[in-house]
Amino acid sequence: MKVSELGEFGLIDLLVKMIADAQDSQPGYPPFLVGIGDDAAAWQGKNQTQLATVDSLIENIHFSLDTISWEELGWKSLAVNLSDIAAMGGVPEYALVSLGLPDETEVEDVSSLYRGMIELAKKFHVSLAGGDTCRSPAVMITVTVLGTGQDDLLRRSNARTGDTIAVTGHLGGAAAGLDMLTRKLNLAAEITASLREAFHKPFPRVAEGQLLVKHGISTAIDISDGFLADLRHICETSHVSARVDVDKLPVFPPVRQVYGDKAVEMALSGGEDYELLFTGDASDMAKIQAESSCPITVVGEITDGNPGEISLFDSNGNPVQIRQSGWEHFIKEQPDR
Amino acid sequence: MKVSELGEFGLIDLLVKMIADAQDSQPGYPPFLVGIGDDAAAWQGKNQTQLATVDSLIENIHFSLDTISWEELGWKSLAVNLSDIAAMGGVPEYALVSLGLPDETEVEDVSSLYRGMIELAKKFHVSLAGGDTCRSPAVMITVTVLGTGQDDLLRRSNARTGDTIAVTGHLGGAAAGLDMLTRKLNLAAEITASLREAFHKPFPRVAEGQLLVKHGISTAIDISDGFLADLRHICETSHVSARVDVDKLPVFPPVRQVYGDKAVEMALSGGEDYELLFTGDASDMAKIQAESSCPITVVGEITDGNPGEISLFDSNGNPVQIRQSGWEHFIKEQPDR
Repeated sequence: MKVSELGEFGLIDLLVKMIADAQDSQPGYPPFLVGIGDDAAAWQGKNQTQLATVDSLIENIHFSLDTISWEELGWKSLAVNLSDIAAMGGVPEYALVSLGLPDETEVEDVSSLYRGMIELAKKFHVSLAGGDTCRSPAVMITVTVLGTGQDDLLRRSNARTGDTIAVTGHLGGAAAGLDMLTRKLNLAAEITASLREAFHKPFPRVAEGQLLVKHGISTAIDISDGFLADLRHICETSHVSARVDVDKLPVFPPVRQVYGDKAVEMALSGGEDYELLFTGDASDMAKIQAESSCPITVVGEITDGNPGEISLFDSNGNPVQIRQSGWEHFIKEQPDR
Repeated sequence: MKVSELGEFGLIDLLVKMIADAQDSQPGYPPFLVGIGDDAAAWQGKNQTQLATVDSLIENIHFSLDTISWEELGWKSLAVNLSDIAAMGGVPEYALVSLGLPDETEVEDVSSLYRGMIELAKKFHVSLAGGDTCRSPAVMITVTVLGTGQDDLLRRSNARTGDTIAVTGHLGGAAAGLDMLTRKLNLAAEITASLREAFHKPFPRVAEGQLLVKHGISTAIDISDGFLADLRHICETSHVSARVDVDKLPVFPPVRQVYGDKAVEMALSGGEDYELLFTGDASDMAKIQAESSCPITVVGEITDGNPGEISLFDSNGNPVQIRQSGWEHFIKEQPDR
């Protein structure tokens, strides 16, 4: 069987099982607080909880140099990892970068890449701690971010029936940005800039992740695969189902403006928005809304049904069908992003 | 200017400067004990010294699937990182893996890759802490290893005039293995197995790194670029020069057997042996030799000359010339490995 037949999530399940068989209940291994399968790994260091996450961006798989600038690429390659630390409620501290570059890459472009990465690192006082530079047939950037967690970590597996579901910021901007750039849509300058930034310069919700922990939230994920796919990750690991009011989704206004009715689909399935999706008590949500400088929108609730099942409704309570549900690597038929 | 014109080390210098300009003497950044430019980054956590290192192996740049098995590839991709922790005298604890795979990759091959990685991880009780899996035009494995350091770390920059230079294990095996596999040499089965293992399954000198710290050694590097290139890294960062007796080099016996006089050149310039190269007091070397289960060979001394200059002599004290001096990414004219 080829990985394209098994799919990304099937492959991950297989590898997780292999590693668990080798390590679990074996003496001598340093223990985990959170192992494989959450946004970041976590373990107890001496007097502090350590967090670690890694993500790669590969040319013509995750980005195209025809549309993204090197500076944006530097920003994004760090942002997607900071977002994973945010989704644990942690504080990012150090980043390691492994850079694969074709021979003909311009040195000035590599400088721009680092300018973008440094620009974002500065906003969170993340120290770039070195890494590795080597030849590669395509541009490849792997960033590892290390941080510290609070006593309570945000997990994917803590959602309980009756929890309210909420998200930070707006959704669908990244999918619309990708569509606009791929199809070379000629939109108003302001909209072009907004969609481009949504796709290329996502702002990791580090402050919001810490705010969630402060207010007793224990379940969160960052939206990388898409709202629906990531909500399904929460529901599957928490063994619950969910009910979402699609009319409440905080669709990014320029997306609504350009795409009309299709905007909701982009918000549900688009992926790469890097907002936080979280669940918890309705009373905690109100406190978070009051204290957050970023919009926090309640969009549904956790229900007691088939694990991983998500039901969509409009504000009149009528069921809603959509076609696609998120992004998965190796699967050839992908959502209409 | 293209990266192939600037070269790997020139590019690293440029990026180090950019990062230093952005971060150094800026308030708010978490501090380093060791920043960019050593084998691993190090910083002070609460009550412990944290170590972190990352290295990528990319298909047809670092390895060919025509010659390496997936299991060997898994071993090697972890080994090169454990070796960096060893070169700091640290204890490796956790590994994160980012895996880029072409669609047509066989799932069984990915399992074999992990089998190889797990086999080595078990030897050092390193926990595989998850990572990232995605599509890629070529197989790409990036491993990050996190560990803890002792109070004293092995640095590249601590070599002093009068220090004795020593290495663990044997040299030249990896270069000979690459040559044998590339040229499809038909050698005796035992030699074939030895050279193949030297190249594909290097054994990281983790125990030896810790032993060096115990006996007061403060300068070490692991040999990845090649003995001469890595000794030059030590000499440049320590602002010293070195004198090496090539007749004392611990050339891997099968290499001497197959390559005769050329074996010494392979030991000097071959790279990827992942032995530790270190400097310190002659009296400490004797204690280390007595306690180490791995051969420790004294091969020269640190001298007070042009920083980075390395002079080679034979055991009669006559100067020796060799043609090449190590491996550097992006540079088209590479040593004759």
